[in-house]
Amino acid sequence: MRSSLVAGLALLLIGCHSNDSSAERAAVPAPPTGASTGASVPGVDASGNWTRPGLDYSSSRFSSLDQITTDSVRQLGVRQTFSTGFLRGHEAAPLVANNTMFIVTPFPNVVYALDLTKPDIPLKWMYDPKPLGAAQGVACCDVVNRGAVFDNGTIFFNTLDNRTIALDAETGQEKWVAALGDINRGETITMAPLVAKGKVLVGNSGGEMGVRGWLTALDAATGKIAWRAYSTGPDKDVLIGPRFKPLYDHLKGQDLGVHTWPGESWKQGGGTIWGWLSYDPALNLVYAGTGNPGPWNHEQRPGDNKWTSGIFARDVDTGEAVWFYHTDPHDVFDYDDVNEAILVDLSINGVPRKVMLRPDRDGYVYVIDRTSGEVLTADPFVHVTSTNGIDLKQGRPVEREDKKPVVGKVIREICPAAPGGKDWQPSAYSPRTGYLYIPANNLCMDFEAVEANYIAGTPFVGANVRMYAGPGGNRGEFIAWDPVGRRKAWSIKEKFPVWSGVVATAGDVVFYGTMDGFFKAANARTGEPLWQFKTGSGIVGQPMTYRGPDGKQYVAVLSGVGGWSGAVVAGGLDTRDTTAALGFVNAMADLPQATTRGGTVYIFGLP
Amino acid sequence: MRSSLVAGLALLLIGCHSNDSSAERAAVPAPPTGASTGASVPGVDASGNWTRPGLDYSSSRFSSLDQITTDSVRQLGVRQTFSTGFLRGHEAAPLVANNTMFIVTPFPNVVYALDLTKPDIPLKWMYDPKPLGAAQGVACCDVVNRGAVFDNGTIFFNTLDNRTIALDAETGQEKWVAALGDINRGETITMAPLVAKGKVLVGNSGGEMGVRGWLTALDAATGKIAWRAYSTGPDKDVLIGPRFKPLYDHLKGQDLGVHTWPGESWKQGGGTIWGWLSYDPALNLVYAGTGNPGPWNHEQRPGDNKWTSGIFARDVDTGEAVWFYHTDPHDVFDYDDVNEAILVDLSINGVPRKVMLRPDRDGYVYVIDRTSGEVLTADPFVHVTSTNGIDLKQGRPVEREDKKPVVGKVIREICPAAPGGKDWQPSAYSPRTGYLYIPANNLCMDFEAVEANYIAGTPFVGANVRMYAGPGGNRGEFIAWDPVGRRKAWSIKEKFPVWSGVVATAGDVVFYGTMDGFFKAANARTGEPLWQFKTGSGIVGQPMTYRGPDGKQYVAVLSGVGGWSGAVVAGGLDTRDTTAALGFVNAMADLPQATTRGGTVYIFGLP
Repeated sequence: MRSSLVAGLALLLIGCHSNDSSAERAAVPAPPTGASTGASVPGVDASGNWTRPGLDYSSSRFSSLDQITTDSVRQLGVRQTFSTGFLRGHEAAPLVANNTMFIVTPFPNVVYALDLTKPDIPLKWMYDPKPLGAAQGVACCDVVNRGAVFDNGTIFFNTLDNRTIALDAETGQEKWVAALGDINRGETITMAPLVAKGKVLVGNSGGEMGVRGWLTALDAATGKIAWRAYSTGPDKDVLIGPRFKPLYDHLKGQDLGVHTWPGESWKQGGGTIWGWLSYDPALNLVYAGTGNPGPWNHEQRPGDNKWTSGIFARDVDTGEAVWFYHTDPHDVFDYDDVNEAILVDLSINGVPRKVMLRPDRDGYVYVIDRTSGEVLTADPFVHVTSTNGIDLKQGRPVEREDKKPVVGKVIREICPAAPGGKDWQPSAYSPRTGYLYIPANNLCMDFEAVEANYIAGTPFVGANVRMYAGPGGNRGEFIAWDPVGRRKAWSIKEKFPVWSGVVATAGDVVFYGTMDGFFKAANARTGEPLWQFKTGSGIVGQPMTYRGPDGKQYVAVLSGVGGWSGAVVAGGLDTRDTTAALGFVNAMADLPQATTRGGTVYIFGLP
Repeated sequence: MRSSLVAGLALLLIGCHSNDSSAERAAVPAPPTGASTGASVPGVDASGNWTRPGLDYSSSRFSSLDQITTDSVRQLGVRQTFSTGFLRGHEAAPLVANNTMFIVTPFPNVVYALDLTKPDIPLKWMYDPKPLGAAQGVACCDVVNRGAVFDNGTIFFNTLDNRTIALDAETGQEKWVAALGDINRGETITMAPLVAKGKVLVGNSGGEMGVRGWLTALDAATGKIAWRAYSTGPDKDVLIGPRFKPLYDHLKGQDLGVHTWPGESWKQGGGTIWGWLSYDPALNLVYAGTGNPGPWNHEQRPGDNKWTSGIFARDVDTGEAVWFYHTDPHDVFDYDDVNEAILVDLSINGVPRKVMLRPDRDGYVYVIDRTSGEVLTADPFVHVTSTNGIDLKQGRPVEREDKKPVVGKVIREICPAAPGGKDWQPSAYSPRTGYLYIPANNLCMDFEAVEANYIAGTPFVGANVRMYAGPGGNRGEFIAWDPVGRRKAWSIKEKFPVWSGVVATAGDVVFYGTMDGFFKAANARTGEPLWQFKTGSGIVGQPMTYRGPDGKQYVAVLSGVGGWSGAVVAGGLDTRDTTAALGFVNAMADLPQATTRGGTVYIFGLP
C-alpha cells in the first residue's frame, strides 16, 4: 500500500514538475506551410548562453532551450531582481556568457556583471564610463541603450556620448575606448554593436538633429576604425563601388546620395544607423538599415533622399555595398528602416530562398532575398493608410498623395504613425512554428509640416505631430505572422504599444513585455496567454533566456519604462503638451497612471 | 486503491500547503520567563491591516496573522513589485488599509496608493507634494522618509521640507497642508507622524544643523497646531509644569532646558524628535524621544544639555510633560534617544509592570516603567566601551573619562559608534516568544572633536569621525533579546549594519532586511534562518504584513538602499573620503560592490 502510494506520488510529481517535454513536442501538430522544412537559422547558440541582443547573427531571438514549456511556464516565478540604479528607459537585453550576466544601463551607460554561479547572484564587477553630461541634452527620445555584445571574452558596448568601449568580461577592465561621433553636431549612439569577423560594427543616432548617418567598423582587438560607410553623399563615402548591384531602376546612377538631395542638404540628411544589424557568415554580408531622412518636413528635401530609410548589404571586411533596398524613398513619415532583419531560409512559392524577414516601420512585413535585395513579398501587418501597398516591380511603396504632409496644413489619419507599425523593438522567429513574432504599434497621427532651420546640434524636425490609437483603440498588438502564408496567424491586443523585444523558445513559448509592466508568456502556436507577472515598471527591454549554472532554463528581462514611447514617464513630461516627444505624448497621456519609472532586471525560473 | 491514493495525497497536500498551523502552535514550547503571561500589547490590529509604521500604538510590530508559519515561509515568493521611481534611501513602511497599499517615497515624498483588490495591484492614485528643492541640501543623512499613517480614512505624512499633509485615502485629494518648520534654519522632517486622539504628532529633524527640537500636535481634522513642546529652553516652552514628576535628582529644577547649557546655546541645541512615538491610551501618554545635543563637540556645551537625548512622557491632549528619563545627559557620542519605545506589560522581578522596552543608541536595552519613568533594568545588547554601565540609582550612564572626546585629539575605539547599538531602525516584540527583535549595528569609531561655528541652516557638528566594524568584524547583528531574562536569546550576525525594521508574527516568524538586499525570515524562537530573497537593492525599509482581499497573508517591504548608513550608495559618495556621511562611509566602503540603488516595494505571498 505504501509503495503504491509513493509510486503514485512519484508519477504525479513527474507530471507536474518535469521539464522534459519531449513527449509533448513529438505530439505537436505539423508546422504551418513553409516552416521548419528548409528553414535554417544560422548561428543559434546551443550553449545556453545569450551573447548578443539578437542571440545569433541572424537575429532570430529563438532559443533552443526547452525546459520552460507551455505547461511549466505557469509555474515561473521571480528568482532574482537587481536594481540598475537608473530611471530612464531600459531598452537593453541582458546577456549571459560564462555564467555571468551583463547589463548595460541607459545613460550614463554603466555596465554590471552579475555572477550567476552564486545563489544570490552578486555583483562581480561594475564599470562606469563617466560620460559627458552633454550627451543627455541631444538625445531625441530618451537616453536609451539597446545592449552590449559578448564576444571572445570581451564586452563591447556604445555610450550615448559616442564612445565604443571594450571591456575584459572577466574583470571589467577597459581594453580600449574608441571615440566615434561628435556630440556638438547632435550625434549620439544608442544601438547595440554587432561583432563579426573581428570587427565591431557601430552606427550613429541623431536623425532628428541633422546628423549624417554612418556605419563604422572597428577592429575588435584595437578599436581602430577599419572602414566607415556613410548613408548619404558621394558613392565613395557610401562605399558604393563595382560590387554594388542595384536591382531596381531608382537605385541606379552615380552619386545618388548627392543627386537625390537639394544642394548640400545630404550633409545633414539623416540616414542614421541606430537599429539592428544582422550578418550572414556564408555570404560574408552584414545588413544595416538606415534611418529617416531629415528634416521630417519633406518639402525641404525633394528627391529620393538616398540612401536613407532603406537597407544595405555590405561586405563585412571592406564595408563595400553589395545591394540596397530603398524601402521608403523620400520618406515623409519618419519611417526609419532600422528594424531587425531576421535571416532565415524559407520555401517561398515553392522555391527555397535565403531571405530576410523585415517587419518595417511603414507597416509591411518585407520578405527580401538576402543575396540580391529582391523583395519577394510585402504585406501589411498593421492598419496602413499612408501608402497603397508595395509595388514589387518598382521596388517602392505606392504613395498616397492625400496623405503626404504639406507645410501649414494638418494631414489627418496617417497610419501607421511616425513610430511605425513597429519601431526598433525586435521581433523573434521560431523555426518550430514558422512564425515571426512582432511587437507592434497600432498608432495613427495627424501631421503638420513646418519649416525647419538647421543649426548644428539642435533639433531639425519641421513637424507638429499628434499621435493616437489606431482602429480598435488598442495602441499595441503582439502579432504572430506567418511569412510564408503571408497572414496574421494570431495576435494579442495590448493597451499600450508593445515596445519590448520578444524571445521565442523551443518550448513553444514566446515572451514579451508591456509598457504597463507585465512580462507575458504565450503559446507560440496558438497565442493562448499562459502566464504573466507585473514587474516594477513598464517593460521596453528585450527579454532573453539562458541556461544557468545549475542546468536550468531561466528567462530575464529589464523592466524600466522609457524610450520614445515612454518618455512621458521617464522624462516626466507634461501631458498637456500633446506634441511633446515628437507627438508621442498625445498617445500616452495615461501612461503615468499605469506605471512608474525605475530600472530592474528580473530573472524568472521554474520552482 | 484509487481512493486511498487520493486520500493520501490530500493529506500530503494539507501537510505541505495548509496555512492552518493551529496544531503546531498548540505544540510550541511554553514561552520563556515573563513572556506572554501578563504581557499585553495594546492596540494590535486584528483586521489584517497595517495602518502605522509600528502597527499599533505600542509599536509592537507584532502581527497576529499566522498563515505564514515557520514551515510555509519556505514557499514564500514574490507576488508583486512596484517601482517607486526614486533612488534615495527608502526607510518607510508600506501601509495597508481598506485593501489599499500606501507608500511614501524619500524626497520628493510622492505617495502612491495601490489597489490590492485587482490581481495586478494597479496604481489607484498618486500624490506629488511638489516640494521645495532646497530641502534636499539641508538633510544631514540622505533624504529619507519613515512612513505615513492611515487613520480614519486619511493618510497623514510629512515632507522633508517641513510640511505635514493630510490626504483623502480613497482619492488622494488634499485635506490640508500644515507648514511647520523653517528650512532656512536647517529644519527638515523625516519621521512618520503618530495619530492619536484626534491629534497628529510631528517632530523635526536637523540635529546636525543647530536646529532646536520640538514635538508638535496638530488637529487631525484641520492641521491647526494644538500644542508644541520644545526639547530645550525654559519650562514653559518645554511644557514642563505642575504635572511633571521628575524621578531622579538631576531632573529636578527650574528651567533646566536653559540652565544646563552655556549662554543661549540651547537655542541651537538639537534634541530634535525625528524617531518613533508610542502612545498608551489608558495612561493618555505619548512617548517621544529627543535627539542628540548639538554640536557633537561637547566642549562647546558644558552641562547636562536638557532635554536632549532622553525620553518624554507627555499628555497627548495638552503636551504637558509628565516624566522624562535622561538616557544620555550631556551626550558626547551622538547618541540620539529617538529609538522606538515598545509598550508591553511584563512581570519584572515577579511584579507585573507597565513598561517600555527601549534598545538605545548607547547600546543598552532599557526597561522603563512607563507610568513613572523609572528605569528597571538596562543591559548592553552590543559591545559597549563608551560607558561603564547604567547607574540605576542615579538614572544615568557611568561615564568613562578616557573615552570622552577632546578637541584636537583622536579618541579611539568608542563603541558603539555614533549610529549606536541601533539607530532609528525599529525592533519588534512578540508576546508569543517574549523576545525583543533588535536590528543592531556592531560599529565602533575614532572621534576627534573640533570647533564648530553656528551659521543658521548649515552643518553644526564639530567632529571628525571614522567608523569601523566592532569585535568580530560583522557590522550588523539581528538579535533576539529576552527583556525579562536580560539576555541575548539568539542572534544572527550580518555583514552590514541591520538598518531595516523588523516584523514579528503569530506564525513565529520574524522578518528583516539587510543592506546588501536580502529579505530574510527566521524562526522567532530559535533564530534558525528559514528563507531569504535577494531584492533589487539594499533594504533599509520597514517590513510589514497584512491580510489581502483574498484572505491570504502577505509580507511587504521597500527595497532601496540609502539613509545614513547607505548614503555612500544612494548619494554616490566618494569612498576615499573616509569622514564622509559623518564618518559612516569609512565603515561602508564595500557597500557599492554589494548593492545598487533604486526603490521598489516587494510583496511576498505563499503559492
